[in-house]
Amino acid sequence: MRKIEHIGIAVKNLQESNLLFEKLFGNPPYKEEEVESEGVKTSFFMNGPNKIELLEATNPNSPIAKFLEKKGEGIHHIAFDVKDINVEVDRLKAEGFIVLNETPKRGADNKLVVFLHPKSTNGVLIELCQEIS
Amino acid sequence: MRKIEHIGIAVKNLQESNLLFEKLFGNPPYKEEEVESEGVKTSFFMNGPNKIELLEATNPNSPIAKFLEKKGEGIHHIAFDVKDINVEVDRLKAEGFIVLNETPKRGADNKLVVFLHPKSTNGVLIELCQEIS
Repeated sequence: MRKIEHIGIAVKNLQESNLLFEKLFGNPPYKEEEVESEGVKTSFFMNGPNKIELLEATNPNSPIAKFLEKKGEGIHHIAFDVKDINVEVDRLKAEGFIVLNETPKRGADNKLVVFLHPKSTNGVLIELCQEIS
Repeated sequence: MRKIEHIGIAVKNLQESNLLFEKLFGNPPYKEEEVESEGVKTSFFMNGPNKIELLEATNPNSPIAKFLEKKGEGIHHIAFDVKDINVEVDRLKAEGFIVLNETPKRGADNKLVVFLHPKSTNGVLIELCQEIS
């Protein structure tokens, strides 16, 4: 848990929200990427040492589609940068946190990712992410 | 908008959540502070260049009490560090963002703060904050 790697924000329309966040930050997204396995199209903005990820669902069964249906647009998760994701998962499990996927999976932006269940983290969906070297 | 200054998380019980987030980060909060005008008790954790703020309501009319009642525990806002809050408010208003308090008010952790209305920011409550020098 070295820093906030990014904050993930669920949006209905990526192109419209890209324009909105470009106005907010004064810069356009530095990349867009589709993660087919998660059913999302994403865009990334740099903000100093952190990133903001916008996520639009690409199919109605995607977790983002379900989130939008239930809660509307807004903050979806916080991702923390970790050095060794397996070591961190073991440490957090031993501390009582509930891990959603034991085996790290490939996420956007060249990362291995693991999610913690919001039930174990005060309602916050937390992503651990390790850069794939 | 130089970096994520902090992420604010609404919690029911600050002491219990302090223990939870201490397990998550491996460090206790570096400070606790009550902001009477906002009806909150807060604690702050350092995480690299960013902070995490936990917020517990101290009265039933506090915005955090209402948030907890409506949505339960979870992420409440993202705060971005700005150099000159008045300049940034003028810029964002000109870009069409809705400002909740035109005049910066005193927030926790020695900051002047202004909030943007989530209706204008994809459902995300955004705080601008400038360190009081």
